[in-house]
Amino acid sequence: MSDRLTAFKALIQAGGAKRPADLVIQNGQLVNVMTAEIYPAEVAIYQGKIVAVDPDVSAYIGSQTQIIDAQQQYLVPGLIDGHIHVECSKLSMTSFAEAVVPHGTTSIVSGLDEYISVIGVAGLTEIFKEVEQLPMRVFWGAPFKTPYTIPASTIADNINSDVQAQLQKRADVYGVWETVREAVETLDEDTLKTLLSAQDNHQPVWGCAPMATGTKLNEYLMSGVRVDHESYDHQELLEKVRKGINVVIRESSVTHFLAENIRAITETDGQIARHVSFCTDDVNAMDIDQKGHLDHLVRLAIAAGVAPMTAIQMATINSAEAYRVDDQIGLIAPNRHADILFVSDLNQFKITKVLAKGQPVATDYQIDTPLVRPVRPASLANTVVRERVQASDFEYHVAESAQQVTVQTIASEGPFVRRAKTKTLAVQDGIVQIDPAQDVALISVLERFGKNGNQSLGFTSGWTLKKGAMASSAAPDDNNLIVMGVNPADMALAVNTLIERDGGQVVVADGEILSFLPLPIAGIVSDVTPAELAIQEKAILKASQAIGSQVVDPMFYMTFLPITAIPDLAITDLGNVDCNQLTLFDPILEIQ
Amino acid sequence: MSDRLTAFKALIQAGGAKRPADLVIQNGQLVNVMTAEIYPAEVAIYQGKIVAVDPDVSAYIGSQTQIIDAQQQYLVPGLIDGHIHVECSKLSMTSFAEAVVPHGTTSIVSGLDEYISVIGVAGLTEIFKEVEQLPMRVFWGAPFKTPYTIPASTIADNINSDVQAQLQKRADVYGVWETVREAVETLDEDTLKTLLSAQDNHQPVWGCAPMATGTKLNEYLMSGVRVDHESYDHQELLEKVRKGINVVIRESSVTHFLAENIRAITETDGQIARHVSFCTDDVNAMDIDQKGHLDHLVRLAIAAGVAPMTAIQMATINSAEAYRVDDQIGLIAPNRHADILFVSDLNQFKITKVLAKGQPVATDYQIDTPLVRPVRPASLANTVVRERVQASDFEYHVAESAQQVTVQTIASEGPFVRRAKTKTLAVQDGIVQIDPAQDVALISVLERFGKNGNQSLGFTSGWTLKKGAMASSAAPDDNNLIVMGVNPADMALAVNTLIERDGGQVVVADGEILSFLPLPIAGIVSDVTPAELAIQEKAILKASQAIGSQVVDPMFYMTFLPITAIPDLAITDLGNVDCNQLTLFDPILEIQ
Repeated sequence: MSDRLTAFKALIQAGGAKRPADLVIQNGQLVNVMTAEIYPAEVAIYQGKIVAVDPDVSAYIGSQTQIIDAQQQYLVPGLIDGHIHVECSKLSMTSFAEAVVPHGTTSIVSGLDEYISVIGVAGLTEIFKEVEQLPMRVFWGAPFKTPYTIPASTIADNINSDVQAQLQKRADVYGVWETVREAVETLDEDTLKTLLSAQDNHQPVWGCAPMATGTKLNEYLMSGVRVDHESYDHQELLEKVRKGINVVIRESSVTHFLAENIRAITETDGQIARHVSFCTDDVNAMDIDQKGHLDHLVRLAIAAGVAPMTAIQMATINSAEAYRVDDQIGLIAPNRHADILFVSDLNQFKITKVLAKGQPVATDYQIDTPLVRPVRPASLANTVVRERVQASDFEYHVAESAQQVTVQTIASEGPFVRRAKTKTLAVQDGIVQIDPAQDVALISVLERFGKNGNQSLGFTSGWTLKKGAMASSAAPDDNNLIVMGVNPADMALAVNTLIERDGGQVVVADGEILSFLPLPIAGIVSDVTPAELAIQEKAILKASQAIGSQVVDPMFYMTFLPITAIPDLAITDLGNVDCNQLTLFDPILEIQ
Repeated sequence: MSDRLTAFKALIQAGGAKRPADLVIQNGQLVNVMTAEIYPAEVAIYQGKIVAVDPDVSAYIGSQTQIIDAQQQYLVPGLIDGHIHVECSKLSMTSFAEAVVPHGTTSIVSGLDEYISVIGVAGLTEIFKEVEQLPMRVFWGAPFKTPYTIPASTIADNINSDVQAQLQKRADVYGVWETVREAVETLDEDTLKTLLSAQDNHQPVWGCAPMATGTKLNEYLMSGVRVDHESYDHQELLEKVRKGINVVIRESSVTHFLAENIRAITETDGQIARHVSFCTDDVNAMDIDQKGHLDHLVRLAIAAGVAPMTAIQMATINSAEAYRVDDQIGLIAPNRHADILFVSDLNQFKITKVLAKGQPVATDYQIDTPLVRPVRPASLANTVVRERVQASDFEYHVAESAQQVTVQTIASEGPFVRRAKTKTLAVQDGIVQIDPAQDVALISVLERFGKNGNQSLGFTSGWTLKKGAMASSAAPDDNNLIVMGVNPADMALAVNTLIERDGGQVVVADGEILSFLPLPIAGIVSDVTPAELAIQEKAILKASQAIGSQVVDPMFYMTFLPITAIPDLAITDLGNVDCNQLTLFDPILEIQ
């Protein structure tokens, strides 16, 4: 407490101009998102915090104070991504920050749920240590439960209501992450207990309720959920805001809701925008490089007809208020973190400079100095814990006497739709014959935390695989090993490659590795630069095309197959899952 | 947990129209403060909570559902008083609710600090039990410290940073109450520790910083304070909002800031109002009866040129968001408490009906059924613990040889200004002679919690007392016994009356009690009706005029004398206090 108290006293004194500021910004036009005003102001910064925003801060200038001339540019608060699974980008926190901070994103709200599936809540200590060094801050919401899957699949660490009750008392926990509507509707007791604890601990509950309207929405709202980030159209968004929820518009690499959602603001009178903000949910390095990050969403909103001030409020103070972190971020005012953007043109929202934690860190969308990757501790390595597999592990056995079988395949129709499709396959010596000619591949999920050695087998279609196999140790939300292929030996090679190299993504054919993308951190993310990762991703894409797939992004889509929240079918380490019934099913429908 | 879980499940099901509503409001115009829209809507209520707000809630109607026809009136959320010391009204919680609920105030934010001074934090259990039964809810902020006085005077229970750290973990604590600017400026370690705990516990810090601007304000903001309720003019208010603080406009019975403060909204472009709300801080029964309560502030704002929707937002959602209770109150939406006003005319803001906790409770500014006073437990009685006093206890002794003395009197210039004024008084037999002719009275504060028997003596002027004495056991913030008079025997009688009758206010002259106002609950508040209290207050006023006082409200002003936050002088049980130096002073300046 003593060091902290000393620092606190110094900060207060710095606010009183009793200690000189570290840095002063002069000659800027303050975009005051608190009052929706723009006026000239100077800003004084001490130890990473804003201590003064006044017409004249000369009282704060000492002999060592650095002075930056904003050259009449606009001073905009650092942008906030209100809901993102960073791990889905396959970038480490440091690599991710290097990608998004130059685009003005200085804060994110995240569940770190993918990390938890592999290294557990205890393992997050290393991630928080890493984040501490970054020009980007992370506001963590503890997942409402893990795993998310129903029936519950195998992951490294389970969060239940008892764990939640403890987590909610932590200073670095800012809410309950992604409480899905279905858990409320089904009156899942463990979830409800978590929500009651959240009431006691004054922790906001963040939800996820796509396509919820009318009585379904009312029912969900009774859970106490405060924020929702998934509306499929603007009427849905509008109803949610009118019913008292803070809505976050999602515009991700795979889902483009902004153009439709924003109509709730551009086509309605009334103060809708006040309770609306932005998130990306999931993004990839290529997208960030080409379009930007939160700055891209601000530009999209302005282009759709939203006033620049309103669009900026949505990316800053509205988000900070929705997530109850407006005492720390979201505006340029005393006691807020000194995350400040210089913007040369509000209509184009062109960012020329980013200050984060009181330091200039990026210029013209480029990081000023590459961020130092931390030395990775043993706890983040050797996370793929499983005995080597053999080709025979990827044979689907039925009775020796069988001639052919009718199977239920998980038919991919894009990343977020899987339908049931029956196929008839030949059987030889009791082994179901995978049939590329019918566009059927074998799929398998292998538990990889050394807990029970589970392995499931199923059939999938819609991938147009002609040969070989592909596998990944990054596969939300469990991040077990998933492998898909038309050749058992290649499937074994793919899995063994991931086991030997401690995680990654791989495409193999004819006993050869065509492409390997290393994911050495927890088997899910990498410390390479965003540009380097984009190159590796392209190589994986090319290799998956070489084995025949005509899907837009086969590796990416495949990694979503274990998510039981996506209709209609999924596969986890437990087996094939009917996502509507939330039960396991036998893929063998009939044996002849 | 089990009963609570069952109730939670029922509430969720009620939201889903799987259980019938208790009550449905039809034919209303919803004033949606979330979006600033007005449109027709029906409201369904279950177990005191709103479960649906839709164009048609017939799915929620069962055979037992009560239906109310709003007759096209506006449905407005129950109003919120953002900062009030209820005890200053001398009304018990129940009596206070009876006064303000008919005026639409269904929630208050309060520190309960006067209660704490007498019955301690533990004693609040009884108050919370009482509140539980009321049609008004209380959001409690634990006082940043008690006592507020510097030097620290004697009260029943001291809150320090250790106590605060524990209180902040409680589900029924919503913030840190009234953290004064001076405690931050002087870097008071105990206060700073409390503020650091508040960061850890995600508890908002509510402040009090009148006349703070520029570097003084910046310094104060570094403490993390989120809300402030005291601005002397609109420029001060504007600077506070621009610098990121949620401002509450105070319009109390003694302080009228609204007309000036509101200019920040009516004379400025920009969204100032979004972060501005209302409070009364302290009110008396007479005022409520004549003008109203929060509804009066709404009308004042509208009359000053604020749009009715904006004024209503200030009294509802803005306050709820500032205090982070918008998940419970401040809007008419699912999962919020069913505190709803029927308003026949928005411009006149005429309230015709009040629903609180889902029940109709008041009509045309009158309570429908008088509220039942709880049986008061022993812990709230016998709180005036002190041996009887004698006339000689009110003699100021100096050396036997003295002829006359020059004394520093505490000269009253209204409730919130006291100046130092010297007077020369005769001495007889070593006793300073009180001199009504010079407008000098004796003043004394007597500790009354049975802790140390402290008694102070001092001189005061400006009261024009001609004879007798007056005393009170209600005297913020300590609520020790305070007595003022020009006759030692009458002063003793006044004090002994309060001791014998267990608290109250009294005026005596010539050995007779002229008027007595009982305050049987903790010696500070009464269970009588607001109307009855108003009658008793008038009797006290008349009696104090009968002993010569020409001050506007002598008893009320006298009770403020122990507050060391009011310049320039005060008196506590420790002695006479210089409020600028925050030290005790000797009122005898010179002996001749």
